[in-house]
Amino acid sequence: MTTEANQKKYLKIYENELTKIEKRILKLFENRFPDSLYEPCKYAMKGGGKRIRPFLVLCAAKAAGGKFSRVYNAAAAVELLHNFTLVHDDIMDNSEKRRGRPTVHIKYDVNTAILSGDSLIATAYEQLLKDCSNDSKTIIDIFTQGIVEVCEGQSLDKDFESRENVSIDEYKQMIYKKTAALLVMSAKIGARLIKDSKEIITAVSRYAANIGMAFQIQDDLLDVIGEETKFGKQIGSDLLEGKKTYLFLKAFEKASGKDRIELNNFILYKGINKVKIPLFKEIYQRLGVIDDAQNEIKLYTNSAVKQIEHIKNSEARNLLEWLANFLLGRIK
Amino acid sequence: MTTEANQKKYLKIYENELTKIEKRILKLFENRFPDSLYEPCKYAMKGGGKRIRPFLVLCAAKAAGGKFSRVYNAAAAVELLHNFTLVHDDIMDNSEKRRGRPTVHIKYDVNTAILSGDSLIATAYEQLLKDCSNDSKTIIDIFTQGIVEVCEGQSLDKDFESRENVSIDEYKQMIYKKTAALLVMSAKIGARLIKDSKEIITAVSRYAANIGMAFQIQDDLLDVIGEETKFGKQIGSDLLEGKKTYLFLKAFEKASGKDRIELNNFILYKGINKVKIPLFKEIYQRLGVIDDAQNEIKLYTNSAVKQIEHIKNSEARNLLEWLANFLLGRIK
Repeated sequence: MTTEANQKKYLKIYENELTKIEKRILKLFENRFPDSLYEPCKYAMKGGGKRIRPFLVLCAAKAAGGKFSRVYNAAAAVELLHNFTLVHDDIMDNSEKRRGRPTVHIKYDVNTAILSGDSLIATAYEQLLKDCSNDSKTIIDIFTQGIVEVCEGQSLDKDFESRENVSIDEYKQMIYKKTAALLVMSAKIGARLIKDSKEIITAVSRYAANIGMAFQIQDDLLDVIGEETKFGKQIGSDLLEGKKTYLFLKAFEKASGKDRIELNNFILYKGINKVKIPLFKEIYQRLGVIDDAQNEIKLYTNSAVKQIEHIKNSEARNLLEWLANFLLGRIK
Repeated sequence: MTTEANQKKYLKIYENELTKIEKRILKLFENRFPDSLYEPCKYAMKGGGKRIRPFLVLCAAKAAGGKFSRVYNAAAAVELLHNFTLVHDDIMDNSEKRRGRPTVHIKYDVNTAILSGDSLIATAYEQLLKDCSNDSKTIIDIFTQGIVEVCEGQSLDKDFESRENVSIDEYKQMIYKKTAALLVMSAKIGARLIKDSKEIITAVSRYAANIGMAFQIQDDLLDVIGEETKFGKQIGSDLLEGKKTYLFLKAFEKASGKDRIELNNFILYKGINKVKIPLFKEIYQRLGVIDDAQNEIKLYTNSAVKQIEHIKNSEARNLLEWLANFLLGRIK
């Protein structure tokens, strides 16, 4: 267990590294033309965010015995790639806000958002290559598989919106691809850039898979119980859009009578009207699915921490443990 | 110069290789799930097309002393990447038809087209990696720069739609990025996968740059004088959309009086109504810009052929010369 003093130390390391990565990313779009392409890219990247994926790259590199500075470009690459998915997903999901700001297709237009998303992919590969040496084929392969999975995950997510029956298992497969896969990819790349060690790569990958699952279920949860000003997104937007989240699917398993009718209508009409958000919150509370989600998040977080027990580098291990708990306590 | 018998021989080689690449590409999407993602990918790739880019990869590899079969995956990769640009560009350009069939966003929907385009990029990298060995860093870098340039080109193209003044030079810079850059990338990759020879890479790249320019100007020309059933796209669509093509810009340079007013209105109202297409054809004819375009296409084609004069492998040289002339005579 980490002490409170250590907690502060790790937070400081995280914030320090985050600032460096932030600067590095924004610099990428300076002196590039046309502005019509790179201004929206910069705007997308300026939104802030937790930068978990790049931090995972750094910690995984440290776990494999490397310095943070050895993988800064790769760290930028995974964040660029993550933001490509956000820019395109926001178009597909009709999301108007992201981290409290207008999404790219709202600030500019859909065409600009499509194209700047595309160009974020290319910029991501550009940056990743800078940290590659003899291992480039393996690294690019891991990175590319990350994109494949995240596209598959997004496609499944869209499929589920129009499907009547989705099981919790199917939901978990979907969020694995949509959310966890890029975290796994980040961890793999960070470790593999330093050392071809199956043991370390497996440990950090499994860690990342588990925090990915926890992260997505918490996202579902925050959509219901979060505070709008802190969460940055509109609260209840999953409900309005008819997203079959962990909470919804769990509630659907448990509901009967009047509740069941409400949830059935949610499926039938692909979402609810704004006025019904409090009712759904109340149903979720009553059926205990808020607790279910919280338990699931804790289970995944504990499992994540278990995966890294045998990592020798104690600072890497502590940082990863800190990150898992930090994410557990997040409100945005 | 090539004889008529040789012409047939080269066409046959082209068609043979094209069939192989075709099969290879369609196989890529078998047994992949979800269908909601990979069916549209397959649909996009099934549209046919001239497959010039993969053929360029093959010929460039031969020019560098390699066998076609050594670069089949890379050939598939550049075609996948090209089709990603088509799928996304068709959304941005509101194009309803491509090669005589509904475009992906019309056949499915915009979201599906965005996502399947994204996944074509990942599939392209996947395939490219299969043909990489020690050179993977260089190859992936060339490929990535191709994507960067094509995004920049598309962004400039969109910019030009709302800009009042665009010079022929600016237009050429734009089509270089939008069209020629991917051909240059294909040629470079084909040659570089076989041999790190600056001489050969430069020769095939310059060749590709020139046929790229010729190709795009011919595309502009076919939009005016092509036959709809053969061209696959709606004739006059550039005029309807207010695209400042080579023909338009050349006409704008030359026009005066009533013609100038018509062309000014084209800029002001961002395109013309369908009924005005014959008038614009007539203006273009009268001002001689059809001839100007044809001359420009011939100049670029001749320049392309000149670049490859010193390539030692005579079959590669002959095939590339044949390809340049084949493209010159295309009607679709």
